[in-house]
Amino acid sequence: MAGSALLTDFYELTMMQGYFLEHHDSKAVFDMFYRTNPFQGGYTVFTGVEELLDMLDGLSFSADDIDYLSSLRLFDPSFLEYLRSYRFHGDIYAFDEGTPAFPGEPLIRVESDLMDAQLIESMLLNTVNFQTLIATKASRMSLAIKEHGAIMEFGLRRAQGKNGALAASRAAFIGGTKSTSNTEAGRIYGIPVSGTMAHSWIMSYSSEEEAFRKFVEIYPDNGILLIDTYDTLGSGIEAAIKIGLEQKAKGKRIGVRIDSGDLSYLTKEIRARLDAAGLEDATICVSNDLTEEIIRSLVSDGAPINSWGIGTHLVTGGSQASLNGVYKLSAKEENGVMVPCLKVSNSYEKTTNPGIKQVYRFFDRNGGALADLITLADETMESGRNITFHHPFSTADFFIMKKDRYASFRPLLTKKMENGRRITESVPLPEIQRTSAEKLASFDKTYKRIINPHIYKVSLSEKLRNLKTELLVKTRVRESEIEKA
Amino acid sequence: MAGSALLTDFYELTMMQGYFLEHHDSKAVFDMFYRTNPFQGGYTVFTGVEELLDMLDGLSFSADDIDYLSSLRLFDPSFLEYLRSYRFHGDIYAFDEGTPAFPGEPLIRVESDLMDAQLIESMLLNTVNFQTLIATKASRMSLAIKEHGAIMEFGLRRAQGKNGALAASRAAFIGGTKSTSNTEAGRIYGIPVSGTMAHSWIMSYSSEEEAFRKFVEIYPDNGILLIDTYDTLGSGIEAAIKIGLEQKAKGKRIGVRIDSGDLSYLTKEIRARLDAAGLEDATICVSNDLTEEIIRSLVSDGAPINSWGIGTHLVTGGSQASLNGVYKLSAKEENGVMVPCLKVSNSYEKTTNPGIKQVYRFFDRNGGALADLITLADETMESGRNITFHHPFSTADFFIMKKDRYASFRPLLTKKMENGRRITESVPLPEIQRTSAEKLASFDKTYKRIINPHIYKVSLSEKLRNLKTELLVKTRVRESEIEKA
Repeated sequence: MAGSALLTDFYELTMMQGYFLEHHDSKAVFDMFYRTNPFQGGYTVFTGVEELLDMLDGLSFSADDIDYLSSLRLFDPSFLEYLRSYRFHGDIYAFDEGTPAFPGEPLIRVESDLMDAQLIESMLLNTVNFQTLIATKASRMSLAIKEHGAIMEFGLRRAQGKNGALAASRAAFIGGTKSTSNTEAGRIYGIPVSGTMAHSWIMSYSSEEEAFRKFVEIYPDNGILLIDTYDTLGSGIEAAIKIGLEQKAKGKRIGVRIDSGDLSYLTKEIRARLDAAGLEDATICVSNDLTEEIIRSLVSDGAPINSWGIGTHLVTGGSQASLNGVYKLSAKEENGVMVPCLKVSNSYEKTTNPGIKQVYRFFDRNGGALADLITLADETMESGRNITFHHPFSTADFFIMKKDRYASFRPLLTKKMENGRRITESVPLPEIQRTSAEKLASFDKTYKRIINPHIYKVSLSEKLRNLKTELLVKTRVRESEIEKA
Repeated sequence: MAGSALLTDFYELTMMQGYFLEHHDSKAVFDMFYRTNPFQGGYTVFTGVEELLDMLDGLSFSADDIDYLSSLRLFDPSFLEYLRSYRFHGDIYAFDEGTPAFPGEPLIRVESDLMDAQLIESMLLNTVNFQTLIATKASRMSLAIKEHGAIMEFGLRRAQGKNGALAASRAAFIGGTKSTSNTEAGRIYGIPVSGTMAHSWIMSYSSEEEAFRKFVEIYPDNGILLIDTYDTLGSGIEAAIKIGLEQKAKGKRIGVRIDSGDLSYLTKEIRARLDAAGLEDATICVSNDLTEEIIRSLVSDGAPINSWGIGTHLVTGGSQASLNGVYKLSAKEENGVMVPCLKVSNSYEKTTNPGIKQVYRFFDRNGGALADLITLADETMESGRNITFHHPFSTADFFIMKKDRYASFRPLLTKKMENGRRITESVPLPEIQRTSAEKLASFDKTYKRIINPHIYKVSLSEKLRNLKTELLVKTRVRESEIEKA
């Protein structure tokens, strides 16, 4: 499963050659983090790192890759020779797949030399940005539906390419979907596959009744009948009821699917018709460009829906098609010592957090998540003490986490890869889905509100805040000296 | 390059088994078309069919695929045995890659049996929907920029997975970008690769001046210097000018890149500073979450920009992350004869066009595109006659294309695949880009207006209109009979 190292932005390679030719291969540490929650929400579901680790384990350049780079006439033979035997050799610390995450937190920390860490930037962001976006979308849709049914992910035909579809099916499942329509995703990831029938099935027979009967003959336990080909409340539901009663006599039940029209009105009418016919156990499945907003509106209307077929807006992110995750240098070697560094920005909230860092999640005695604290990785954390939580941007702002307020804390960045090799086992997808849901359940519902959520606090430790202030002041002083000069 | 047949929605397989077990394998014809232009624009650039043909040529199920399907305990051994020797065997007619296309036009016509045509639906839509969306986005961005520079596509890190990135780079190039940052896309598709440097390059040196100098030592002809790491109008531009003058003395030129801040204001200031220093030939490149709207605003502000690094909003579609392309049955075999069929909808504009169809594009004597006409494939088209163009939905509405108004017409659907094998050569990507641009140039600019474009007319021939009306009436009569019964 190792990836091709050529899946990288070209500038990573030109910079890499630069570092190589200059013998500027000092150690470096990079953080991956994002700045704002997608969908105006309160959290993300961190996803994609397991696939990233698979790609990085054994990452190398093929002979074809080298030939291609050579053909560009921009790379020195000595560098190409180096690439020939190159293997990714960094250490990687990351949040566990499926962990709820928040803006500004280092979710992945890469420790290697400059060349190595730089090369994987694009691949890392490509994988984690997208899957985190989609897992988050699935999580939000699941929360909006709550107990009102399960999500069948139907996104293949509207997804962004083959891998866009596969990665989306995987991430959506972590975020809480029940099944996928993408058979290949079923095979690769073990996600349950599901589907109903297309309008063309109906149209290939002389009547809906014939089409439905043929279907349940073959799939007696899987009879979701699509009733909106010609006239949902006319011929469609009538044929479905007829077949439903035939199946009931055999001890089987059916369901119906509606793929067009006013789903709130139609599902209520259909429910009443099914119930009146004695088919109270027939399920109702809806689809048709469902967005978060439409889901919320159907749920609050009390539409009697048992299952939701969701495609486009789930697998592409819909209103927001990308997560703004970035990858920034946080420490580099100078004269044999690791020195923290930061990128200053004119927007204060874009100035990065310097140094090699860890993130701790604090819990109350019921296991409820209280707040996260970004620290330096080598800080000693002692429980049973009051701890100062500094605001991430506003230097003078802080609160005290009282020792009797929290019961425990846990580091979220753990070592997943050493010297380019995975040191943790791949976790099966259903287990990731389950632990992700458990972790999300530990957050108060106000943080998970779909609209206008409460802001979960992510703070800096005193040491990190002091380091950031110190470096920021240093940079500003240096700048004014340059300007005076 | 043949794909796995498992990249399909699960219901295609369950329907396929249904047709198989019922010996219901009559011939069928499907059309792929879309209903509305993306981005509220006036056209699309039809893209993806070349990759689709590669996937379909030799499409089959691997032994692993069959094992997986068998494990689901839903498929009959006889059907699995059939799949084992299955090869895609349909005929495919399609618009040429890169052709401007419009709502309602059959862009791909698949002729095969029901099972075969059904199986490929998801793969076909996945490939063509996404690539058409992105080529269209790239085309719109190129039109917005016009002569004010070229687009470097920088989307890998924000694209939707690996293949989402590769397919986007390919499609964006067809739509008019000049280069990609995705090295793998460069290797696979032969797209020129380009890149500048990251903030981390600057931060890994003790000063911007040192970082820039090291860079141009290695890349004397490729010196685009990123000047916004610390202070764009302070240390950044000053170091760039210093290096620029050193390079000028060696007969080399530089460029600068700005990745943050108010790009209109900054580019004007930077241009003035560069010019004042005698670096009139230094180029200015901008990036930072550029959208169509920001591009238009920068162009109309007269921002002196030479090259545009565009990522997220180009490779994901940005505001619209999917094209609503669909795949509908248009004819089926009954008693050995192909019978046209249509799907009626309560929304009149969603009722499909029946029958096996062709699309003709009409041109004036200067080669300007006038209008498109959807006909039945077996209609004889004679030039030098007045031709009635019927409105696609409004049955009584039409116009006459006078014989002296048009100089020629050309069929847009041509045969690309016969019995599951490509019968046309793959076209090199640069040639597709060139012919696509030429074709787009044949349309009046009012159709290509970014906002509120003139609607290009796509009409039905008299025969097709009559057939549609006839079938629609038949369906409604049948429905009322069912209701009376």
